[in-house]
Amino acid sequence: MARGNEISRRQFVATAVSTAAISSFSAQRLFAMGRTDDRPSEQPASDLIANPSWKDQGIESLAKSPYAKLRNIPVRAVTIKVGFWSQRRKINVTKSIPTMHDLLEANGRMNNFRRLTGSSNAGQHGPVFSDSDIYKWTEAVGFALGSGDLTDIRPTVDKMMDEVVAIQEPSGYLNTYYVDDRKNLRMLPETQTTGHELYNIGHMLQGAVAYYRGTGDRRLLDAGIRFVDDFLIPNYGPAPKKPIVSGHPEIEMGLIELYRITGDKRQLDLAGYILQGDDRIKLPEHRTIYMYSGTPFTARTKLEGHAVRAMYACCGATDYYMETGDQAYWKTLSTLWEDLTKRQMYISGGVGARSDGEAFGDAYELPNSRAYGESCAAIGNMMWNWRMLAATGEGKFADVIERALYNGIDSGMSLDGTLYCYRNPLAFDPSTGEKIRNPWYDVTCCPPNLERILASLPGYFYSTSSNGLYVHLYDNSELDWHLEDGTGLKVAQKTGYPWDGKVKIEVTPSQASEFTFHLRIPGWADRAQVSVNGKTVAGVRAGEYLPLRRRWSPGDVIQLQMEMPVQVMQANYHVVENERRVAVQRGPLLYCLEELDQPEGVALSDAALYLGKNSPAQFQSEVESALLGGVTVLRHTGAALERPASGSPLYSRYSSAPARMRRVPLKFIPYYAWANRAATSMQVWTPVFQA
Amino acid sequence: MARGNEISRRQFVATAVSTAAISSFSAQRLFAMGRTDDRPSEQPASDLIANPSWKDQGIESLAKSPYAKLRNIPVRAVTIKVGFWSQRRKINVTKSIPTMHDLLEANGRMNNFRRLTGSSNAGQHGPVFSDSDIYKWTEAVGFALGSGDLTDIRPTVDKMMDEVVAIQEPSGYLNTYYVDDRKNLRMLPETQTTGHELYNIGHMLQGAVAYYRGTGDRRLLDAGIRFVDDFLIPNYGPAPKKPIVSGHPEIEMGLIELYRITGDKRQLDLAGYILQGDDRIKLPEHRTIYMYSGTPFTARTKLEGHAVRAMYACCGATDYYMETGDQAYWKTLSTLWEDLTKRQMYISGGVGARSDGEAFGDAYELPNSRAYGESCAAIGNMMWNWRMLAATGEGKFADVIERALYNGIDSGMSLDGTLYCYRNPLAFDPSTGEKIRNPWYDVTCCPPNLERILASLPGYFYSTSSNGLYVHLYDNSELDWHLEDGTGLKVAQKTGYPWDGKVKIEVTPSQASEFTFHLRIPGWADRAQVSVNGKTVAGVRAGEYLPLRRRWSPGDVIQLQMEMPVQVMQANYHVVENERRVAVQRGPLLYCLEELDQPEGVALSDAALYLGKNSPAQFQSEVESALLGGVTVLRHTGAALERPASGSPLYSRYSSAPARMRRVPLKFIPYYAWANRAATSMQVWTPVFQA
Repeated sequence: MARGNEISRRQFVATAVSTAAISSFSAQRLFAMGRTDDRPSEQPASDLIANPSWKDQGIESLAKSPYAKLRNIPVRAVTIKVGFWSQRRKINVTKSIPTMHDLLEANGRMNNFRRLTGSSNAGQHGPVFSDSDIYKWTEAVGFALGSGDLTDIRPTVDKMMDEVVAIQEPSGYLNTYYVDDRKNLRMLPETQTTGHELYNIGHMLQGAVAYYRGTGDRRLLDAGIRFVDDFLIPNYGPAPKKPIVSGHPEIEMGLIELYRITGDKRQLDLAGYILQGDDRIKLPEHRTIYMYSGTPFTARTKLEGHAVRAMYACCGATDYYMETGDQAYWKTLSTLWEDLTKRQMYISGGVGARSDGEAFGDAYELPNSRAYGESCAAIGNMMWNWRMLAATGEGKFADVIERALYNGIDSGMSLDGTLYCYRNPLAFDPSTGEKIRNPWYDVTCCPPNLERILASLPGYFYSTSSNGLYVHLYDNSELDWHLEDGTGLKVAQKTGYPWDGKVKIEVTPSQASEFTFHLRIPGWADRAQVSVNGKTVAGVRAGEYLPLRRRWSPGDVIQLQMEMPVQVMQANYHVVENERRVAVQRGPLLYCLEELDQPEGVALSDAALYLGKNSPAQFQSEVESALLGGVTVLRHTGAALERPASGSPLYSRYSSAPARMRRVPLKFIPYYAWANRAATSMQVWTPVFQA
Repeated sequence: MARGNEISRRQFVATAVSTAAISSFSAQRLFAMGRTDDRPSEQPASDLIANPSWKDQGIESLAKSPYAKLRNIPVRAVTIKVGFWSQRRKINVTKSIPTMHDLLEANGRMNNFRRLTGSSNAGQHGPVFSDSDIYKWTEAVGFALGSGDLTDIRPTVDKMMDEVVAIQEPSGYLNTYYVDDRKNLRMLPETQTTGHELYNIGHMLQGAVAYYRGTGDRRLLDAGIRFVDDFLIPNYGPAPKKPIVSGHPEIEMGLIELYRITGDKRQLDLAGYILQGDDRIKLPEHRTIYMYSGTPFTARTKLEGHAVRAMYACCGATDYYMETGDQAYWKTLSTLWEDLTKRQMYISGGVGARSDGEAFGDAYELPNSRAYGESCAAIGNMMWNWRMLAATGEGKFADVIERALYNGIDSGMSLDGTLYCYRNPLAFDPSTGEKIRNPWYDVTCCPPNLERILASLPGYFYSTSSNGLYVHLYDNSELDWHLEDGTGLKVAQKTGYPWDGKVKIEVTPSQASEFTFHLRIPGWADRAQVSVNGKTVAGVRAGEYLPLRRRWSPGDVIQLQMEMPVQVMQANYHVVENERRVAVQRGPLLYCLEELDQPEGVALSDAALYLGKNSPAQFQSEVESALLGGVTVLRHTGAALERPASGSPLYSRYSSAPARMRRVPLKFIPYYAWANRAATSMQVWTPVFQA
């Protein structure tokens, strides 16, 4: 189904041309509002850039967002070549998205729509948010189609879109759950707080936008517009309209992205209204904490409650800031981001400590085995930081993106693309009976969420700014796009990243041109060197973008050389489970131990990293191309209790004498690749045994 | 309301004589079954002992239980004098039980009954198990009345009992929730798994038994018998009867205690049937784990699921074993007890690691701040170990009882007796916003549970065995009871326990008599000496009962002298939060730090216990009679981070250099007394800083 890594531009165009006709209703509607997006190509470039055609819009379309410093490039503008991400992306379109389609069908998610038009006699299946499963999957498909992948699934998806749109009621309402006997529950405050009506529509809008940007097909987008413009806006909002509340934030992002297409400020205002909550809906405090909505976003002082809800709320709030510049939002977002990175984030980039409420814990509450770290929450974290990065161009946000992407997100999908983690713990023991990777969850939010991230990944590689280009991610790839002044620009990366810290970047503007190439120096890369055409550049600082301003000519070469030693990390003293434990990372990759890689008889729970008194850790790294799709493993001397602790009492008199340990070799693998072999124990944070 | 600590026997008799008349229905019924318990006192002593009158029955009545090694004494047989427990027990009857009555009324728990007879027009209030609140409170009152306390509340309670019994239907069914529209949900398998119908009746039986044993009043007991004999037994049980399942174990204990009164083996058999589950009711595995019922108890291999459910199931199963001697039960109980004490129990004696499902965690999952340690679960732990002790006479069970009672249970009620902990964490930070002690919970299981334990406490001090007497608990007290051969026996304890390890025990049999006085040597007391009439006795072993067999004469004196040094404890290597942390205990009391006792500016989360390289901990203990009702505090040098960790990054490069710490004095208080002053941080497990 997939075209591999090299999708020709011709194929993409062919795909786009074949897209379905726009319903006369929609065409008229868009025309009436003066926003037919498929502008003739003879328009001036500057206008095209400010009003990008559907196929030139990125994950977000920030072309007109006054408080965005960076602008997205379209997903199709980057072709990822053979390297780290190409494997994952190929699996995504050949295995994950197609098998998820079959699972969605097998689990009645589409029949929920069909039964309402009489084309299925199945009953309602799945939880209240089951519609969103379809929309998220559609979003993944939309991004993939944009890259020219998955074209043979296209007719199936078009038919599904027709089936979705077919149940839209004349009022604009569209939902498969609040029908029949449950019709009278629609839009009640109680339903809104738990019923995911607006959440479903938020995902519909995101799916519709991705499908539109990938194909030009407006059918789902128009249904979304009808829901928003005909059903929501006339009836809901500040008094005298009826109040609404975002029980699970998501609609905010959807509305603002819709606004970025339509220019209809009422959609932005509705998002702002929702972000502020409506005190006509009285909610107990624990509910507004859990929902991370229902009270003014700008009154939040910390991350708490349901982690995905909180992350999506932060995404919506950042989007709102980029459109309005409201400083109260920025202040809150900055406070919350400090909370995230100082007290709430796993070293994997995952978030959400508690399974109870799938929630953030208290400050520094970051248990390992019990970590929730829902895949969706790590994705929400990446999406939020993507927006913060767009707002500022600051490297600290890209660092969080990279940490989440390579670790807490990438761990969410099995290497074969058919099994998913719902939670992503930092330690695991299969003797608890838990199966950590599964093909299907009745709450199947994570699998299509992972699919949409992989499908949209090229769109995260670069941004443009008024003065040039930003590169965020490193992998073998080709950018074919233009600067904001319209100058064509190709950028080719050649690298072994993330296994190797050398990146060769060839910059080819359509004509020699002065602009700034903002080169990301990852936060972990404290020994990095940069040269342009062989000349070393000063001012390299880890965690920042190095602004390379010059007159760039075709064939100019940037060499980024990052030393990639193994880094032994410790957690803040307040993280009680990690006291005197360390985690190991190399480049952007977090590592872990799996018990099956250790000598027989060594239980991870009895093992430690052996460090000499005053000598640094001494790891050997080794490429194992046959292991887990090809990884660099790390080896170090460890120590294991001579007598397994399971034989010791639960409580005993304290002894200051070190436990008796024997030396054993330890082998670490990248965290993202864990749980891809036989069920075995895993741990990220390992005690230090200092002899 | 309370009589303080010295309730004369005359007062008790007066109370008993004043008890209400037995309804003619009940009298007839008991007579017909040949079990009028109020036997004339001229019966031979041996018969009286084998068939004890209501007022001679203890917490459990094991007189005829063939596989019980020990037998309970009645609660009234021990008078607790001024000392450690007298304060708590006085508060219990002057404050806790009376204020809980008012809260139960204010929260509609009694009106739930009254509305069904038309004497209240309030709606139904509280969760499905609200009836049990009344029954548990009644149980506490029953025990208190047995000790001669609370006599002036008696008319109120009698009236309440009448109001409860008044709603019993002709079928025997009695429940305030499954009425009106919910009537058709009664006894459905779904209702049984979540609706607490049998749980309510289990507590009704326990309340009824305690009230009966405290007063001779049978009105609630007879209603319980009617429910069991008329409604349950004819209709529910093995095929062809309808199946039942214990959604929340409790009925098992209740049925078996009822059997011990009535001798009706059908009641015991019903308990056995429930303990084994009925496979006609199909339940998903996660449900039977959570409920700790619905599958054969004897197939259990570990503690898991809802902690209170599991503990109550173990109680019922131990009761069943004591009646039947079924070795499969004993094997399972032994396995589960090993799991409890090797992998699942907090050092406080609390159990239940997770708030999610109020559940046991995985092996060694014992977080501190997040500990659930529900008061009810610690009580369930004590109740289970009380039964295991009765079955065996082994000291290891008494050690768990003492650990739970003095720490994880006693912490559950504020010193003023009006505020309760639902959960009992081992670390706490009020900045999380949690209020740990509250006067009322809508799920108000814990407060009356704590009240019944304090009210019944005298009944836990001693047991008899075929060869003599066992003493389990130490406090100033007087036993006035008899051996199983009928020989009268008084025992007076004089001690400063638990602050001081000296106990003087005066043994006064009604006549010189040979028997074994089993003297408990607590597990912590590894430096204990025993003398009888001044002569040292050999064979003292911590954690065992020292069998003192001799011809005891009036005025014989046992001196138990336990050294009570501060003990610094460590947890098993597998308890990840306690790695290189220690807990401090002295005698049976666990200690903790409260931030408000430490020097200003020292945050507990930045503090450690300072220990010299090879020198033992050196605590100063000091009596502070004005503090927290009078406690012994412990002082030790500590260390505090020079720069608070809250200013440090969440993750940083590992440094093997010790953190820079300054010396500070630390002051420890007993754990049971925490959270009785201003909201402040608390921790039990403190890191060790070894210089």
